Amino acid sequence: MAIITFLSDFGSRSPYPAAMKAVASAICQATFLDISHDVRRHDVREGAYLLFAVVPYFPVGTVHVAVVDPGVGTARAGLIVTAGGQFFVGPDNGLLLPAAHRLGKITVYRIQNPAYFHSHVSPTFHGRDIFAPVGAHLARGVPPGEIGERVEEYVDLDFGRGVWEDGSFLGRVVYIDPFGNLVTNIPGEMVQGVWNHGDLIVVESRKWSIEVTFAPSYGFVPPGQFLAAIGSDGFLEIAINQGDAARELGAAVDQEIRVKGIRADRETLSR
Amino acid sequence: MAIITFLSDFGSRSPYPAAMKAVASAICQATFLDISHDVRRHDVREGAYLLFAVVPYFPVGTVHVAVVDPGVGTARAGLIVTAGGQFFVGPDNGLLLPAAHRLGKITVYRIQNPAYFHSHVSPTFHGRDIFAPVGAHLARGVPPGEIGERVEEYVDLDFGRGVWEDGSFLGRVVYIDPFGNLVTNIPGEMVQGVWNHGDLIVVESRKWSIEVTFAPSYGFVPPGQFLAAIGSDGFLEIAINQGDAARELGAAVDQEIRVKGIRADRETLSR
Amino acid sequence: MAIITFLSDFGSRSPYPAAMKAVASAICQATFLDISHDVRRHDVREGAYLLFAVVPYFPVGTVHVAVVDPGVGTARAGLIVTAGGQFFVGPDNGLLLPAAHRLGKITVYRIQNPAYFHSHVSPTFHGRDIFAPVGAHLARGVPPGEIGERVEEYVDLDFGRGVWEDGSFLGRVVYIDPFGNLVTNIPGEMVQGVWNHGDLIVVESRKWSIEVTFAPSYGFVPPGQFLAAIGSDGFLEIAINQGDAARELGAAVDQEIRVKGIRADRETLSR
Repeated sequence: MAIITFLSDFGSRSPYPAAMKAVASAICQATFLDISHDVRRHDVREGAYLLFAVVPYFPVGTVHVAVVDPGVGTARAGLIVTAGGQFFVGPDNGLLLPAAHRLGKITVYRIQNPAYFHSHVSPTFHGRDIFAPVGAHLARGVPPGEIGERVEEYVDLDFGRGVWEDGSFLGRVVYIDPFGNLVTNIPGEMVQGVWNHGDLIVVESRKWSIEVTFAPSYGFVPPGQFLAAIGSDGFLEIAINQGDAARELGAAVDQEIRVKGIRADRETLSR
Repeated sequence: MAIITFLSDFGSRSPYPAAMKAVASAICQATFLDISHDVRRHDVREGAYLLFAVVPYFPVGTVHVAVVDPGVGTARAGLIVTAGGQFFVGPDNGLLLPAAHRLGKITVYRIQNPAYFHSHVSPTFHGRDIFAPVGAHLARGVPPGEIGERVEEYVDLDFGRGVWEDGSFLGRVVYIDPFGNLVTNIPGEMVQGVWNHGDLIVVESRKWSIEVTFAPSYGFVPPGQFLAAIGSDGFLEIAINQGDAARELGAAVDQEIRVKGIRADRETLSR
Repeated sequence: MAIITFLSDFGSRSPYPAAMKAVASAICQATFLDISHDVRRHDVREGAYLLFAVVPYFPVGTVHVAVVDPGVGTARAGLIVTAGGQFFVGPDNGLLLPAAHRLGKITVYRIQNPAYFHSHVSPTFHGRDIFAPVGAHLARGVPPGEIGERVEEYVDLDFGRGVWEDGSFLGRVVYIDPFGNLVTNIPGEMVQGVWNHGDLIVVESRKWSIEVTFAPSYGFVPPGQFLAAIGSDGFLEIAINQGDAARELGAAVDQEIRVKGIRADRETLSR
């Protein structure tokens, strides 16, 4: 049975996620899985990160319907993106792109064929009337080329990649999870090439600076203490063991950070 | 495979929604879908609205188990309501009625046959011990007449319908969604018969009055600006593009509103 | 089709619950049910209670993947526990034990065989990389002995059981539900042996003392009034009809309470 996932900023208190699944359930039998419906409202980047975080773990054939869509009903297009045998359906505002890129080469279609929409399309709810039914038709095997037309232009979105410069990593915070952990865009394998577990490193933004231990996981430092670890998505993460690092630091998504080793010789040692 | 939906005010932090699905899963194979478990506690009207909003999109045969039930364990009855080939199970307090009426002619049964209940019925949790198992039995094909007895008396609930009077629409707020959008009971097709997109209209309650643009969707006015649109359930909705209209206005469910065009001639023009 | 449930403190705003289901969905076809992902973070006892509350209602063969895991990545073991034909998978910190004990005799395995893990194991996310895939393999019929080794030592957890002493019940608060109801560890059948519905009883902790009616359910006292009832899990519960008892009392989980009848003769009457 095909899998259709749903992601939105509709809120789990609202009827809108269920409306999308209702429409899909009338079109095909599938396993419905929620990624989250509590994306911060209109926060396309947060939605994009959640999708990015989970897609490598889904089987080929999975269809992802994602709707964080402040431009609903305006001229913004709707897209189908395919990559690595998975399908992404949603608005053309960048939401789908980081996840799709993570799976490899992408192909993008602009949704056009109303034969695959709900019979009545509300200009305020394309999630229910366009994206969910299109996702359900893809799940039952309709080829994307039947529903849309291939395009080369679309709104792209990229979390960037931290870089090594003058003995430091420069990057930014791309996601703050509900634990208050700061997920950065600094690739774990780069960090592991420079420091060893147990090393002291300094993490600083324009507003704060902390000295932390680079550790394998949270429980390696005492509760309440900062640490840096390679998070589960493979990027450097700043956390407090059993605490909320984002609140403690006043950190925010998109904040630039610089990370450097306390001992300067580390730099030459390992690269 | 049949679909069983669940709606409650139990809270997604509680074990109670899962307990209902556990009981149902031991009785039948079905696709379980949550409408929401974060209805404001004991708010029968909000629960009724969520159910009302989604039912037209579900296929024939769907069973809805809905539990917002401040009177659990008292003499209030439990109901099965059928309409349009769908089934509704829950307390006799109005919760199921707006949704059922939306699907057409309704038939109401008072739940009576304990053979279809859980073996032990807790007086504080009929959701798990009566409504979920009854819903599961309906999903596997047991006729409602086996489980209950047809009745003509039950607690009804109606959101009303806005009316046209002296050049204005009179209605009320029936739902405030997590975005802070005010959903009214003024039918969209009535509004569209009077005003055109781009017209300025005045929306007023006893406590506030605003001048807004009647627009096809949110993104047609600048961020932060009020608008009126036909919402996705077909009713006039007051919103702020990327903002929270309910908070800004201090609006509340059930508040009466009056909506009129700025230019008086509109009235004669279109009706 | 097998059932796999998921419980965690990851938060429904996070991508982590979906990541666990993604991994499981690539291993087996199953019905996925969430118990909750909004357990208070790192609150092993609250997670344990939620699991405890629902397991008797699930069919034989159900697999429960539960992750409240402040020690992730450290030396703490991962467990499979079997009881009553159901399976529990999660960290060795007590989380799984009350639920398993509730089903009868338990057998405990320490997870060891990486052939059943995800290909890459992140030290910060065993839920996705160990517990979810192990759960999925159990759901498709792999015997627990293939995945782990039987052990006799593990972290146990017990909510205790209220006792009758000097004419009172002594117990403690084990869970506060989203309604603010205080669930205690005083067994309902003991209470029912002593008092009758309608009796006045006194409930006191070190910080508060209230006089309440022992009632069959919430709606038997006027809105806003305290009551005691046998809750849906079979334990004495303190509640306010349509109110929040925990907030009103400033009650907390683990608080000791003493419950006694107002009339002393009740004691001799019934035991």
